[in-house]
Amino acid sequence: MNMNDMILKKREGKTLTREEIQFFISGYTKGVIPDYQAAALLMAIFFQKLTDEETFYLTEAMQHSGDIIDLSAIKGIKVDKHSTGGVGDKTTLIVAPIAAACGVPIAKMSGRGLGFTGGTIDKLESIPGFRTVLEPEEFVNQVNEIGLSVIGQTAHIAAADKKLYALRDVTATVDNASLITSSIMSKKLAAGSDAIILDVKCGKGAFMEEMEEAEHLANLMVSIGKSAGKKTIAIITDMNQPLGNAVGNSLEVQEAINTLKGDGPKDIEELCLRLASYMIFVGEKADSPEHGYQLAQEALDTGSAYRKFLEFVERQGGIVSKEHGDISLSPAAYESKLFAKEEGYLLEVEAKKIGVASQHTGAGRETKEDTIDLSAGILLHKKIGDAVKKGECLATVYGNREDKVQRAMTELEDAFTFSKKMPRKISLIKKIIE
Amino acid sequence: MNMNDMILKKREGKTLTREEIQFFISGYTKGVIPDYQAAALLMAIFFQKLTDEETFYLTEAMQHSGDIIDLSAIKGIKVDKHSTGGVGDKTTLIVAPIAAACGVPIAKMSGRGLGFTGGTIDKLESIPGFRTVLEPEEFVNQVNEIGLSVIGQTAHIAAADKKLYALRDVTATVDNASLITSSIMSKKLAAGSDAIILDVKCGKGAFMEEMEEAEHLANLMVSIGKSAGKKTIAIITDMNQPLGNAVGNSLEVQEAINTLKGDGPKDIEELCLRLASYMIFVGEKADSPEHGYQLAQEALDTGSAYRKFLEFVERQGGIVSKEHGDISLSPAAYESKLFAKEEGYLLEVEAKKIGVASQHTGAGRETKEDTIDLSAGILLHKKIGDAVKKGECLATVYGNREDKVQRAMTELEDAFTFSKKMPRKISLIKKIIE
Repeated sequence: MNMNDMILKKREGKTLTREEIQFFISGYTKGVIPDYQAAALLMAIFFQKLTDEETFYLTEAMQHSGDIIDLSAIKGIKVDKHSTGGVGDKTTLIVAPIAAACGVPIAKMSGRGLGFTGGTIDKLESIPGFRTVLEPEEFVNQVNEIGLSVIGQTAHIAAADKKLYALRDVTATVDNASLITSSIMSKKLAAGSDAIILDVKCGKGAFMEEMEEAEHLANLMVSIGKSAGKKTIAIITDMNQPLGNAVGNSLEVQEAINTLKGDGPKDIEELCLRLASYMIFVGEKADSPEHGYQLAQEALDTGSAYRKFLEFVERQGGIVSKEHGDISLSPAAYESKLFAKEEGYLLEVEAKKIGVASQHTGAGRETKEDTIDLSAGILLHKKIGDAVKKGECLATVYGNREDKVQRAMTELEDAFTFSKKMPRKISLIKKIIE
Repeated sequence: MNMNDMILKKREGKTLTREEIQFFISGYTKGVIPDYQAAALLMAIFFQKLTDEETFYLTEAMQHSGDIIDLSAIKGIKVDKHSTGGVGDKTTLIVAPIAAACGVPIAKMSGRGLGFTGGTIDKLESIPGFRTVLEPEEFVNQVNEIGLSVIGQTAHIAAADKKLYALRDVTATVDNASLITSSIMSKKLAAGSDAIILDVKCGKGAFMEEMEEAEHLANLMVSIGKSAGKKTIAIITDMNQPLGNAVGNSLEVQEAINTLKGDGPKDIEELCLRLASYMIFVGEKADSPEHGYQLAQEALDTGSAYRKFLEFVERQGGIVSKEHGDISLSPAAYESKLFAKEEGYLLEVEAKKIGVASQHTGAGRETKEDTIDLSAGILLHKKIGDAVKKGECLATVYGNREDKVQRAMTELEDAFTFSKKMPRKISLIKKIIE
């Protein structure tokens, strides 16, 4: 097999065979196929697309390019959850303890982030003492004992994805449904759970801005998951404005805690209940998603989900105050407030601009080597549809470097659009793909 | 400026600015922009094309990425000639002495080849003693004294092209008119001549198989040449079957000698007279191409072109026998003949297959490091339209390694197609683009 011929074949719109795709992924992972040939192939794939079958073969090859995690020592149906990414998305911190409190074992590996904020692992590290690296045995034991563990993803999972993603990121080849699918699903399939709930974001703050694209991606991921023998359901959700009010790392942990205590923003609570309902359903702890929803609601109402969260944090070394049964996070040194210059209804609260502002505060990495400011970020006080008076506070920016806080303020000013009329309400849950 | 944004811009079909193109070429030449980003951009260019303006800026940036040759010390209008490449193309060896004999100064840099045979420089090196490396002063003096010199192209000419071409070659991004144009024209413009005659090949043995593509390429090159202030004319010529009968290095030199002596294949002679007629015309040694043709014909008939060739060879160190006024080339150790298995008219003599067979004999390089077997190659005894009897010899394969000769024979068998009816004659000269 010859890589140049394969690039030409895809460039001409022909279908690659399973063997060709395996040859590419195995050669690229080993470093035998150079980055420049991979980049040319990725761009040819962008233009000519991959068939569903090619996408399956690509996912399969990537899944087997690193370690395959064996979770068979954990009893029950292990359920994983993944979000395609958005601004203010702290759902894992909430749905994992809800599902675990309802008896669904959660043995989850999460990533760090390059972007608006850190990933779930960075967020968890804003809890003093929290350990995100556990030995495999400790990980398995913890899930068997308390039903929940979340650790950092090792580089040995889907090794090809790590290299390919870094390449796509600098060659304008990120936003293709087959490439996104193979990247996400190869890791999910290698991570060993039995079922997967996908939260596919749609809107101006997501990869997929249009519903049609989001549906295509969701259908593709569900079909690939099922072809690999995993129960897979996707929920398409809105990502035009940030999720909840907090964007940052410790700010988001605090909002997750509030939500688990029944005191979170309504959008976050509703989305987490819906995601958890499907996790409980595919984990066979409920007969239907509706039944799952009821159980999830009870776990919030009775406090069992929050107790599960504290148990999980403490078990992984996080400091939980014995007195108040609470977690204390470090505050940022600086804050700055954005006030409304006009009055009206909020028509847009642009997720992407708020994400960029959050990155400017130091809450997100701009390069892989950057250190995250875990207390930095943004708290929104108003969201789409809210009535705002002139001079009212729209948002507060936090951070430990004053210049960065100011830089974020500049970006933030353009993120809010006002209207005289009350805008139409956007529904958060757009579609379920099973 | 950010390379990822530029790739995205082109991927979305937008037009790059002159500054962006200069940024890319200058960064890529210096090694600041990596191969993988260049490869992604090239593939995006393949799909989204470049406008004529972008092609001009690309050519200009590439032209200035290395040395610009100053030929102002040479008197007269210096004329260069370029062929887009085909099988059996030894025209430079013939037209350069014809034009020089008619008073047009030819100060030409030629390349080596990766492909079916070597390039002009490899071919000249099959003449014992011939030196293809001259100091700039020696090169200029020789043209001023005898009107003709051909030397190897230095790496310092259009440095970006050397890197980009090597990359295109392994990323399936060779066959795009703008990329071909910028590659050829950047070198021609940097090489310092005042006028350029382009031989654009069209047919199954060329990059451009269809007339429409060839015309597009020819128009683009002529327009770029004129924009850069050079008199430029393109001649579109047939490349379905090899040019002449010889494919190889010393075999082609021998055929060029025969042609200069008035004893060459008719197709070669006709094409060379036409190319030379335009060279003489743009060099202002004739009032019209027709007048140029007449002068070229006279240079062949009187032997002045052949005497110019011998003078040129001797001046560059090539051994010319004093006795016979001739050049003796080393023969190959092995030969093998292909006989016709049926009778009929030759409908096809596939240039590409004969080219591949030639490469198999050792006449062409498969990798940059390969050494060429200068005596290897193929002599055709029949061409399209010829009547062939069963058992007649179609071709002879030459080489210094018996296994390679046999490998070439296998490839060669499929190159000939017979017909009961006499096929329609293909005209060699298809169109003139001025």
